[in-house]
Amino acid sequence: MAPSSTAATAVLDGLPGIRAWQEDFYRDLHRHPELSHQEHRTAAKVAETLAGYRVHTGVGGTGVIGILDNGPGPTVLLRADMDALPVLEDTGLPYASSTRATDATGHEVPVMHACGHDAHVTALLGAARLMADGRSNWGGTLVALFQPAEETGDGARGMVDDGLAKLLPPVDVCHGQHVMPFPAGTIGVHAGPFMASADSMRITVYGRGSHGSMPQASVDPVVLAAMIVVRLQTVVSREVSPAESAVLTVGSITAGSKSNVIPDRAVLQLNIRTFNDATRTAVLDAVRRIVTAECMASRSPRDPEFELFDRFPLTDNDIPTTERVTHAFTDMFGERCVELPQGAGSEDFSDIPRALGVPYTYWGVGCVDPDVYRTAAEAGSINQDIAVNHSPRFAPVIQPTLDTATQALITAALAWLTPA
Amino acid sequence: MAPSSTAATAVLDGLPGIRAWQEDFYRDLHRHPELSHQEHRTAAKVAETLAGYRVHTGVGGTGVIGILDNGPGPTVLLRADMDALPVLEDTGLPYASSTRATDATGHEVPVMHACGHDAHVTALLGAARLMADGRSNWGGTLVALFQPAEETGDGARGMVDDGLAKLLPPVDVCHGQHVMPFPAGTIGVHAGPFMASADSMRITVYGRGSHGSMPQASVDPVVLAAMIVVRLQTVVSREVSPAESAVLTVGSITAGSKSNVIPDRAVLQLNIRTFNDATRTAVLDAVRRIVTAECMASRSPRDPEFELFDRFPLTDNDIPTTERVTHAFTDMFGERCVELPQGAGSEDFSDIPRALGVPYTYWGVGCVDPDVYRTAAEAGSINQDIAVNHSPRFAPVIQPTLDTATQALITAALAWLTPA
Amino acid sequence: MAPSSTAATAVLDGLPGIRAWQEDFYRDLHRHPELSHQEHRTAAKVAETLAGYRVHTGVGGTGVIGILDNGPGPTVLLRADMDALPVLEDTGLPYASSTRATDATGHEVPVMHACGHDAHVTALLGAARLMADGRSNWGGTLVALFQPAEETGDGARGMVDDGLAKLLPPVDVCHGQHVMPFPAGTIGVHAGPFMASADSMRITVYGRGSHGSMPQASVDPVVLAAMIVVRLQTVVSREVSPAESAVLTVGSITAGSKSNVIPDRAVLQLNIRTFNDATRTAVLDAVRRIVTAECMASRSPRDPEFELFDRFPLTDNDIPTTERVTHAFTDMFGERCVELPQGAGSEDFSDIPRALGVPYTYWGVGCVDPDVYRTAAEAGSINQDIAVNHSPRFAPVIQPTLDTATQALITAALAWLTPA
Amino acid sequence: MAPSSTAATAVLDGLPGIRAWQEDFYRDLHRHPELSHQEHRTAAKVAETLAGYRVHTGVGGTGVIGILDNGPGPTVLLRADMDALPVLEDTGLPYASSTRATDATGHEVPVMHACGHDAHVTALLGAARLMADGRSNWGGTLVALFQPAEETGDGARGMVDDGLAKLLPPVDVCHGQHVMPFPAGTIGVHAGPFMASADSMRITVYGRGSHGSMPQASVDPVVLAAMIVVRLQTVVSREVSPAESAVLTVGSITAGSKSNVIPDRAVLQLNIRTFNDATRTAVLDAVRRIVTAECMASRSPRDPEFELFDRFPLTDNDIPTTERVTHAFTDMFGERCVELPQGAGSEDFSDIPRALGVPYTYWGVGCVDPDVYRTAAEAGSINQDIAVNHSPRFAPVIQPTLDTATQALITAALAWLTPA
Repeated sequence: MAPSSTAATAVLDGLPGIRAWQEDFYRDLHRHPELSHQEHRTAAKVAETLAGYRVHTGVGGTGVIGILDNGPGPTVLLRADMDALPVLEDTGLPYASSTRATDATGHEVPVMHACGHDAHVTALLGAARLMADGRSNWGGTLVALFQPAEETGDGARGMVDDGLAKLLPPVDVCHGQHVMPFPAGTIGVHAGPFMASADSMRITVYGRGSHGSMPQASVDPVVLAAMIVVRLQTVVSREVSPAESAVLTVGSITAGSKSNVIPDRAVLQLNIRTFNDATRTAVLDAVRRIVTAECMASRSPRDPEFELFDRFPLTDNDIPTTERVTHAFTDMFGERCVELPQGAGSEDFSDIPRALGVPYTYWGVGCVDPDVYRTAAEAGSINQDIAVNHSPRFAPVIQPTLDTATQALITAALAWLTPA
Repeated sequence: MAPSSTAATAVLDGLPGIRAWQEDFYRDLHRHPELSHQEHRTAAKVAETLAGYRVHTGVGGTGVIGILDNGPGPTVLLRADMDALPVLEDTGLPYASSTRATDATGHEVPVMHACGHDAHVTALLGAARLMADGRSNWGGTLVALFQPAEETGDGARGMVDDGLAKLLPPVDVCHGQHVMPFPAGTIGVHAGPFMASADSMRITVYGRGSHGSMPQASVDPVVLAAMIVVRLQTVVSREVSPAESAVLTVGSITAGSKSNVIPDRAVLQLNIRTFNDATRTAVLDAVRRIVTAECMASRSPRDPEFELFDRFPLTDNDIPTTERVTHAFTDMFGERCVELPQGAGSEDFSDIPRALGVPYTYWGVGCVDPDVYRTAAEAGSINQDIAVNHSPRFAPVIQPTLDTATQALITAALAWLTPA
Repeated sequence: MAPSSTAATAVLDGLPGIRAWQEDFYRDLHRHPELSHQEHRTAAKVAETLAGYRVHTGVGGTGVIGILDNGPGPTVLLRADMDALPVLEDTGLPYASSTRATDATGHEVPVMHACGHDAHVTALLGAARLMADGRSNWGGTLVALFQPAEETGDGARGMVDDGLAKLLPPVDVCHGQHVMPFPAGTIGVHAGPFMASADSMRITVYGRGSHGSMPQASVDPVVLAAMIVVRLQTVVSREVSPAESAVLTVGSITAGSKSNVIPDRAVLQLNIRTFNDATRTAVLDAVRRIVTAECMASRSPRDPEFELFDRFPLTDNDIPTTERVTHAFTDMFGERCVELPQGAGSEDFSDIPRALGVPYTYWGVGCVDPDVYRTAAEAGSINQDIAVNHSPRFAPVIQPTLDTATQALITAALAWLTPA
Repeated sequence: MAPSSTAATAVLDGLPGIRAWQEDFYRDLHRHPELSHQEHRTAAKVAETLAGYRVHTGVGGTGVIGILDNGPGPTVLLRADMDALPVLEDTGLPYASSTRATDATGHEVPVMHACGHDAHVTALLGAARLMADGRSNWGGTLVALFQPAEETGDGARGMVDDGLAKLLPPVDVCHGQHVMPFPAGTIGVHAGPFMASADSMRITVYGRGSHGSMPQASVDPVVLAAMIVVRLQTVVSREVSPAESAVLTVGSITAGSKSNVIPDRAVLQLNIRTFNDATRTAVLDAVRRIVTAECMASRSPRDPEFELFDRFPLTDNDIPTTERVTHAFTDMFGERCVELPQGAGSEDFSDIPRALGVPYTYWGVGCVDPDVYRTAAEAGSINQDIAVNHSPRFAPVIQPTLDTATQALITAALAWLTPA
C-alpha cells in the first residue's frame, strides 16, 4: 500500500465518528436550500463548522474559504458549491424543502437542492474536519473552498474576481466533485474534456411591423427568425468536425402575439456546448455570421443584438493529474472507481484552477441506491425510473453517498499532500 | 335626373337640419368607445334614437334593428357596426377617449374608436332619421341594422344565429360602408371581390422536451416550428395561381422560455386572406397538410392541433348591384365617386346578405382632410403622414365625412326603393 | 357601320380569293420550321411574297420589313414572328415537320412550329396582300414586320438595335397577335398588362469542395443552394404586394455528381415573371440580395455570379389603343371578340413599339376546333385534351384560324388608317 | 524480448535481401494501375509471386488467396487490396501512370494508384515471401489474401459471397493495413471504432412538371429537394447524440435543365458515415422518414425512391486483438508505434473477418517523407503541402514505407503464430 493511501486510511478512521453529524447536517441543508447568490445561511453554517481553519467569508458574495496550514508540503484546494434551484420539490422525503424565495427577477419561486450541492457541502465539511483531526498523518496546506452560484455559472468567477488568489497560498492542484445518477458507493473519473463549456446567447432580430394583410410593407421577423433557426442547424451538421462534439440548441423563440399583426422583432435564446475552446469560438462566430447574414437577406432595418449569459467554462481534466488521482481512487475503492464517458453538462469549477494557473481533476460521485439502479437497469428503465439532477424528484440516498464523497475528497487530497 | 336621385335630393334636404346633432352624437360616441360584444351604451343610444322605427334590441348580444315600414316596395337593409378596439388613443382630439375596459381575457385595456365605427353608427342614424322624416318621397321598407363585434368577426354571424331572418321582412338588397384613409367627400366603389376573406388559425405542434445538452433525447419543437414557417411560404409562392391574391402571415411564434431547455411544444398563429372561396379552401388545406407532414418529419409524438378563429367572410360585391349603386352615386357625387382597388382588409358585413340570400355592395367613405391628403400625396409621404384604421392616431375629419357617409346611405337605399 | 369597318369589309372581300394560297403557304411553313436566328428560308419566302411593298431584308439578322406607302395618313405597323422551337413534332398531321437542325450550342435537335408562328407569318402575308390589293379603300402607310427569334426574347431587340427606326417612316401605332388555345374564330383582347415581363437568371454560387466525410473542411454548396431556393420563396410570399402578380421559379438546380464528394459550386436557373416594372426591379434586387446574404451565411469563398438571359419585356396594352381596336373588332366579330384574362406567358413584341415610342395593343387568336373545345369544356378536360403552345401536339386548325387572324390584322390596321 | 518478437526479428533478417525486388515490383504496379473489378494483371503477378503457397485465383472475380501450411498452430489472415482509381496522376514521378481504361459505365478514364493499394500488395507479397523463407521460425498457417474492388466497397463481400470460407482453414484472426499521410516509418493503431461505416443513397423525388409561369399547376421538385436538403441537416444537429460521430453529406442535387420549365423530379445523392451500427440504422431511418414526410408536405404525386450503394462496413478494431498487436508493434517499432484518432474514412476489409466470425485489427502505415512532414508541420501547412489519399498528387515515399509495412504485417502475424 502506497504512503498516500496509508495516510488516507488513517485519516478516514475518524469517519464513523462524524457520520451521524454529517447526515444531520445534510438533512438540515436539504431542508433549507438557497438560490444562487443568496447562500447566506449555508455560508454561515459552513464558516462556523470550519473549526481550526483560517476562514475567509463573503468572498465573491457568499463564498467561504477555510485554510488549514499543516507544515511544509503542497497545497491542495477542494471545492464545493452551495446553491440550490428554483424547483418545487417532489421527493416526498421527510426532510424535503418547502422553501420559497424571491429570485433575481423579483418573482417568488420554490427552492430545492435539486442538484445535490447540499451533499457537496456536507462531504467537504466532513473531509475538512477529518483532515484537521488527522493532521498528524500528512503535511502541507489544505484549502476548503465553498463557492456560491454554480447554477448561474458566475459563482466561481465571482470569487476569482473578488481576489481569491490573494487570499490563498500558492495552490498546486484543485479538485471538485458532483453527485450524479449512478450507483452510490461508486466514483467516476474521466481524463481530458469531461464536461462541456456552455454559453447562452439571447439574439434579438428586427423586422418592420405591419398589418398581417400587408406583408409587402413589412420585414417579417417571424420568417427571419425561422430561417435563422433552420440555418443554425448547419453549424453542427456541416461546420463542426465529426470528431468534435458540439450542441447548438435554440431553447426559445418568441415573436408577435396576434395572428394578424406582423411584429417588429423576434427573440431567440440559444445554448451552445462544446468540448474544445477552438470549437467554442468557431461556433459562436458561426452563429453571429449566420444571424447577421440572414438579417441582410431579410433587409432587416436594424442590426441584430447578441447578449451572452450563463457562460460555463470547459471542464478539461488534466491527464497526469487525473491519472494520479485515479490511481489513489483505485487503491481506495477498487472496482468501485469507474471511468465515466464525456457528458454534455457544464460546471464552473474550472474557473478556479484556470485563474490560479494550476491543473485539476473533477469527478462524479454516485448517489442512487444501488439496488434501485440494478433493478432499473435490468428492466431497461433507467431513463424512466432514476430521477436525474434538476428533477423535482432528485433524491440522493444519504449513504453510502456521503461516506463515498467524503472518502474521495480525502483520498484525492492525500494523493498530493506529504505523508507524515 | 333619375327618379331615385330626385328622391335622394328631396330626402337630403333635411341634412343641414340634423348636422349639428349628428356631429355632437359622433363626438359623444368617440369619447365612449366600447369593446366588441360590450356595446351596451352605444346600443341603448342607437335604440332611443330610432324614433318612428320598429326596434329590436339585444339581437346577437347587443345588436339593434330598426324597421321603417313605408308601404309597398322593396326592402333595403343598411348596416353599421358599433364596436371599438383595445387601442390607446393618441389623437390629441378634444373628444379623445380615455376609456378603459376589461377585455374577454380579463385584462384591463384602453379602448378607442380606432376604426371609425362611431362614424358608421352616426351616419346610419342620421340617414334613418332623414329617411323617416322624408318618407313621403319613397315607398318600401328600410332596415337600419347596427351590429356588434365586427372586429372579432363574429358580430354579424351572432345576429344571424340569433334569428335575424325571422325579425325582418324579406330583404331585397344589403348595403354597408366603411371610412377609409382617402380624401373626405369621396366615395369609393368596387365591383367583385373587394375585401378578403380572413381566417386566423392557432396551431400547436408537439415535441418532446429535454435538456438543451441532449437534443438526441428530444423532438425539438423550435426546429419543427421554424421548418413549418419556412415551408408555409411555399403555399403562396408555389400553390396559389399568380392570377389569384392570397396572404399567409404567421403573426406569432412562441416556444420555450429558457436557452438551455428544449420545450415540448410550439404555438404558431396564422392569418390567411384570400379573395376566392376555392383559394381559401386550398390554402387552409395546404396549411394542414404541411404542418402534419412537418410533424411527421420531426417524428412528433402527438398530432398537431388546429384552431380556427377570427374568421371573416369574403366581401364580394355583386356586380349588377354595384353598377346600380355606382350609377346613383355618380349622379349624386359626380367625380367624387371613384373606383377603389381590391384591398386585403376584411369585414364580416357579408355574413348578413349571405345568410339572407340577397345581393349586396359595400363601399368606402373617405375620411381624411382633403388638403392634408393632397399635401402628403405631393410630398410622397402618404404612408408616413396619414394615420390608417387601427392606428392610435386614426382621426377622421368630422366633415365632410359624416355628410358624405349619410348621403351615400340614402342615395344607395333610394336606388332601390320606389320613388313616390 | 363606321367608316373603318366599311373599309375593312371592302378590303376583306378579297379574302376568299387568297384562302387556298394562304393555306398552302401555311402547310409549307409548318413543314419547314426554322430555329431562332436561322429563319433564312422563311424570310426569303416572306420577302418574295411582299409584292408591291418596299422590302428590307436582313434586319437584325433575318428580319424582313415590307412598307406600303399609300398616300397621306397614319402609319400602322403589324408584326409577325417567324421562328420555331426545338421540339419533336407529335401531331400526326400530314404536313408535320421532320426537320432537324443544329442549335446554338452545336447540338442537332428536332424542330417544330410548336408555337404557331407559321400562322402569324401566313396571316400577316395574307393581310399585306389584301391591303395592297384593296389600297383604294384606305390612305396612309402600312408596315408589315416579320421578326426573328421571338422564342429567345432577342429578335425584336435585334431589329431595333440594327436600326429599325431609321428604316421606317414615323409609326403611329403597332399591333401584334398570337394564336392561343381557345376556340378558333374568336379574338381575345385585354387592356393593360397582358403578358408578363420575364427574366431568366443563371446564378453560380461557390463553396469549397471536400471529401464527403469532412464537411468541416468544406463550404457546402449543396446546402447553400438549397437554402437559397428556400429563401427565394419569401420574395413572392412576403415582399410582393398581394395586389401584384409575380412568379419566381427555380427551374433547375445542379451541384455535384458523386455521393461522397462535396462539390465546389452550385448552379441555379431562375425564371421571374412580373406585370409591373417596379415589381420586376424589386424582385430582381431581392434575388441578388438574398443570394449574396446566403453566400455570406455559408462563408462562401467567392462572390456569386448572376447572368441574366432570355429577357422578355412586359406586354402592357395601351388602354385607349386597345379600346379603339376592341371597338373595331366588336364591329367585325361581334360576340366572337372576348376579353382575355391576364396571362403569365411572355412576348418580345413590345420591344418594337417601346423603341419607337408609340402605343400598341396585342391580342390573341383562337386556334382550337370549336367543337373539340366545347366537348372538352363540357367534360371538364380542357387541360388534358387541348394541346397548348410549345406542346409536341400543338396543332392549330387551319380554318377558321387563318381567316380570323387575317381579318383581325386588317380590322386593327383600318381602325387607324384613313378611310378612302 | 518476447518469443514472438524473436521470431519476427529472425524472419525479418531476410528483408534486405528482397528490398530491391520489392521496390521494383511497387514501381511496376504503380505504373500499371487497374480499376476496381479489373485487377487482372495485378492478380496474375500476385499469383505468380506466391511461390510455395497453395494459391486460389479468381475468387470473387480477381481475388487471390495464398495459403502457407506450416504445421500446427493458429491461422492468421493478412489482407491487401489491389484496385486503383479513376484519377489523372499528377505526381511527376518517373514511374507515374499514364494508363487509361474503360470504367463500369463505359467511359474511358485515366487510372492511378491514388490510394496506395500498390504499396499494400507489395508489402503483403514481401511479407508472404519472408514468412515462407523463414518458416522454421514459426508454426501455424498463414493466409495472404489479395482482394479486388475495395474502392467500390464490394470487393471483400464479393470474395465472401464466392465461397471464401470454404477455401480457407479455420481462421483465428485477420489483419489489414493502409498507407496514410503521416510520417513514413511510423505505424498507427486504434482500438475500437477506427473507420466509419459508409452508405451512399440515391433518392429520387417526384413532382409534377409545368411551365415556369404556372407554379400552381406544378408540384415543384426543386423546392421539394431543397427542403429535403435543409431538413436533413437536423439529423446530425438534433437526432444524433453529441457523444456520437455521424456525417450526412448530400454530395449532389440535380433537377431540371431550363430556367422556365418546372421539372418533374429531382435526384439527390447522399453519403452517410457513422461509427456505430445503431446510429447507422437511426440515421438511415431518419433520412427515409424526412424524405417521405417532405414529399407529403409537397403533395408529391409518387412515392420517393431510395437506392443504397457503395456501402462500407464499420471498421471496429477488436480491443484485445488490438492490444496484443500494439504490444508486438511497440516491441518492434518503439515510439514509432503511435495511437491514431478515429477517422471518417471507410474500408471494406472488415467484411472478411465479420463473415469468418473472427476478431481483427486494422492499422495505418505512414507514407510521407518524415522531413517533408516535419517542415510542413512546423509551417502549419500540412493541409496544403501533404497530398492525401485520392489526390492526383498522392505519392508515398517508397522507403521506409515498404519496409515498415512489410515489418508490420510480419510482426502482427507472429504475434499469434506459434514460435518455433
